[in-house]
Amino acid sequence: MATNYGGHSAGGPTVSEVGEAATISAILRAAPSDINGDDAAVLESAPPNSRTVATTDVLVDGEHFRFDWSTPFEVGAKAVTQNFADIQAMGGRPTAVLMSLSVPPDLPVGIAEGIARGMATTAAPWGVELVGGDVVTSRQLIVSVTALGVLSGPDPALTVDAARPGHLVVASGVVGHSAAGLALLTRYGSRAAVPDQPILQDLVTRHCAPQLIVGRGSVGRAAGMSALTDNSDGLIHDLTTVARRSGVVVDLDGDALTPDAQLYYAAEVLGVDPWEWVLTGGEDHTLVGTTSQQPPAGYRVLGEVREARSDDAWPVTVDGQRPLYAAGWDSL
Amino acid sequence: MATNYGGHSAGGPTVSEVGEAATISAILRAAPSDINGDDAAVLESAPPNSRTVATTDVLVDGEHFRFDWSTPFEVGAKAVTQNFADIQAMGGRPTAVLMSLSVPPDLPVGIAEGIARGMATTAAPWGVELVGGDVVTSRQLIVSVTALGVLSGPDPALTVDAARPGHLVVASGVVGHSAAGLALLTRYGSRAAVPDQPILQDLVTRHCAPQLIVGRGSVGRAAGMSALTDNSDGLIHDLTTVARRSGVVVDLDGDALTPDAQLYYAAEVLGVDPWEWVLTGGEDHTLVGTTSQQPPAGYRVLGEVREARSDDAWPVTVDGQRPLYAAGWDSL
Repeated sequence: MATNYGGHSAGGPTVSEVGEAATISAILRAAPSDINGDDAAVLESAPPNSRTVATTDVLVDGEHFRFDWSTPFEVGAKAVTQNFADIQAMGGRPTAVLMSLSVPPDLPVGIAEGIARGMATTAAPWGVELVGGDVVTSRQLIVSVTALGVLSGPDPALTVDAARPGHLVVASGVVGHSAAGLALLTRYGSRAAVPDQPILQDLVTRHCAPQLIVGRGSVGRAAGMSALTDNSDGLIHDLTTVARRSGVVVDLDGDALTPDAQLYYAAEVLGVDPWEWVLTGGEDHTLVGTTSQQPPAGYRVLGEVREARSDDAWPVTVDGQRPLYAAGWDSL
Repeated sequence: MATNYGGHSAGGPTVSEVGEAATISAILRAAPSDINGDDAAVLESAPPNSRTVATTDVLVDGEHFRFDWSTPFEVGAKAVTQNFADIQAMGGRPTAVLMSLSVPPDLPVGIAEGIARGMATTAAPWGVELVGGDVVTSRQLIVSVTALGVLSGPDPALTVDAARPGHLVVASGVVGHSAAGLALLTRYGSRAAVPDQPILQDLVTRHCAPQLIVGRGSVGRAAGMSALTDNSDGLIHDLTTVARRSGVVVDLDGDALTPDAQLYYAAEVLGVDPWEWVLTGGEDHTLVGTTSQQPPAGYRVLGEVREARSDDAWPVTVDGQRPLYAAGWDSL
């Protein structure tokens, strides 16, 4: 099987040429940690009255990323971002990352290094290091990441089943930008072919390496939010999970969702409707949740939660109506 | 690419036929947990003055297991065993498991279920559940497992760099049995072809689903052991890591390593030397370490630690000599 690594680290040695020990050394140089290197990683003492939070995600070459679209650094960055978003979505604070790489023998070591560097750089603002991992041979490059976090104090975790009628629906961050970036990459075929305009390139970057605001999940929990999740599979899709698990209906305010100028511009370039990106686009990893209080700092209101009635046809509505677009990501 | 699942779940629906949600439901039925199903898993409150321990491993179809050798249940069981062995090797107690499955679209759902059931059954005696995971599409079946554990109290973790001259080398469990099982499978080609003799079938089972003694790592830590690791890559290989990281020499007692009757029998059947299995065979996941005290309950003495001298040619010796066999597992 021919492998295409998008020209990254072309000409450099491959993992099979340098062997397991040298590959692991390269990863550890790119993502150093004092607590990596024994049978298992031992984290710092947990704060009193705290709980550990854990989540895991897999990124498969050709399914979740492509090297003619993303750099290895961005692949590592995104892997950390999506896992940290899940930790934040419980109201937690990330404390550690583990990464396993399944690598084809012809993978340039530089790509493994780049992925590790993207992980370390993205985790650093949280005070988090790559504390453990595994490297094995496979036919396809697969990046498996597990993030650990901590919930301090007795307040409940922010689960998807805690939305209640009367709560506000709030969000922190952009919605639809990652989907717009993906649409641009899909249309133009490669990153190099996307027109060199900052407004478009920025959307592409939002897809290849979405960014989180450090600590926004803990802020939401400290401010007494009820439910919280992140926009990973699509706004309607993810809020449908909240609505179903909470036994409520989420009604969004169309005005609050209106695509921004950047999305409208990209949509015009592509000749598509930007509302589809807002309603069904995933991978922004924007925190979306509910609260019985005022919106926490950095959150804006997107709608409200109401009681479910037996004649409700849709768990999530926009201005009381069925959303114009509602599909979301299904991974199989 | 033709896929061979060894006839397991033949005729059952595939993951692409039932889709992501039904595949995840099947896994959750096989490995139920109340704390699985949100953005991230929230574990029980950590004991006061405790530390979290984390480790991760990947098993690749065709590299680390084969379905004409192992059942899906055994693959799941082994994935848990090797991760729990790493938690134990720090002196910890496992508290949670996460599993990500990368699955070819034609994988029978029953195989994913079998893997999950093997994990849940193996984790149960430790009071541990499958608390989270991910399911994605790939060209090759890949099982990524992360285990979490806890170190209670202020005693140090049992690291590989803590062996000191004068300490005893001790072990708990068999050494070389997994390698003998692998040799039988390799020679006969399939599990069905291995002669139907309990003594041989038992070795094959030791390879396909090695078993741990629950709690042996915590016992070692409570009894004041210094260094601890598990026999995952081969006895000489793993003790070389301990010797190098501790700056000592490990001298093993040949009498204590003498292959048992079961290994001698299998070696005679295959016409090979059983000492190679004892010295270089991995994947028994037997705990091997050092102590300045008497051997903890369930451990036996394998040798002793001595000071490293500038003229030492070998970090690990047997009766003061270079080991007869010394190679170990290299994954790339």
